[in-house]
Amino acid sequence: MTVTADDIVAFGSRYDPQPMHTDAEAAARGPFGALVASGWHIAALTVRAFVEAGGYGSTPVVGLGIDELRWLKPVRAGDVITVHREIVELRRSASNPGHGIVKTRVTVRNQAGEAVMSLLTAGRVPTR
Amino acid sequence: MTVTADDIVAFGSRYDPQPMHTDAEAAARGPFGALVASGWHIAALTVRAFVEAGGYGSTPVVGLGIDELRWLKPVRAGDVITVHREIVELRRSASNPGHGIVKTRVTVRNQAGEAVMSLLTAGRVPTR
Repeated sequence: MTVTADDIVAFGSRYDPQPMHTDAEAAARGPFGALVASGWHIAALTVRAFVEAGGYGSTPVVGLGIDELRWLKPVRAGDVITVHREIVELRRSASNPGHGIVKTRVTVRNQAGEAVMSLLTAGRVPTR
Repeated sequence: MTVTADDIVAFGSRYDPQPMHTDAEAAARGPFGALVASGWHIAALTVRAFVEAGGYGSTPVVGLGIDELRWLKPVRAGDVITVHREIVELRRSASNPGHGIVKTRVTVRNQAGEAVMSLLTAGRVPTR
């Protein structure tokens, strides 16, 4: 996905209204010297990428939690990010055998191949 | 903050387009029997609450990471959430003494006082 300046400002204005995410001119004087995406925006885009890619088909995934989320590099306007998702654990829920717990490791990279964000997810899905 | 159905659908449509977040009728047949907010939406609203409340004044906060994020209860249309944030650690950065690291524990509660989300944040701020 290309992260445009408009996307950055739209998310920033609504959910993380710091000047570095909402105003290119003010961002030039900010910690990164330019507009950068809210880290939460990058997180939200990884969710969209997962759902749009088909994820687990029409099976609803209920998010249980996130661990070790790290924002490693800033994402600037025009950066192209790719989301890599690997299933690292899959087990039946002990408390509710009608459900399974899926854990995934997510790594987001920019066009230079640098990791910009990583996290571990835990989600609940119905079993077959 | 009151989380409205419109808010839930706006965020869901853009960032987490699963039927339980985007379509009240389909959500009625989904895992919660009604429209519920994306967990990432609740996370984004806690960021906005922090920035709008003044946070650390005009000091920019650069998010470094999140740990132990847990979505504990669903948030439904019309729920009123309150964000509680406590500074749990404050220290000078070892690698960059011009910056400090602030860690906070965030708890989001609904109108019944039930915790719906909790997380630990780590952020970087410039020192005085």
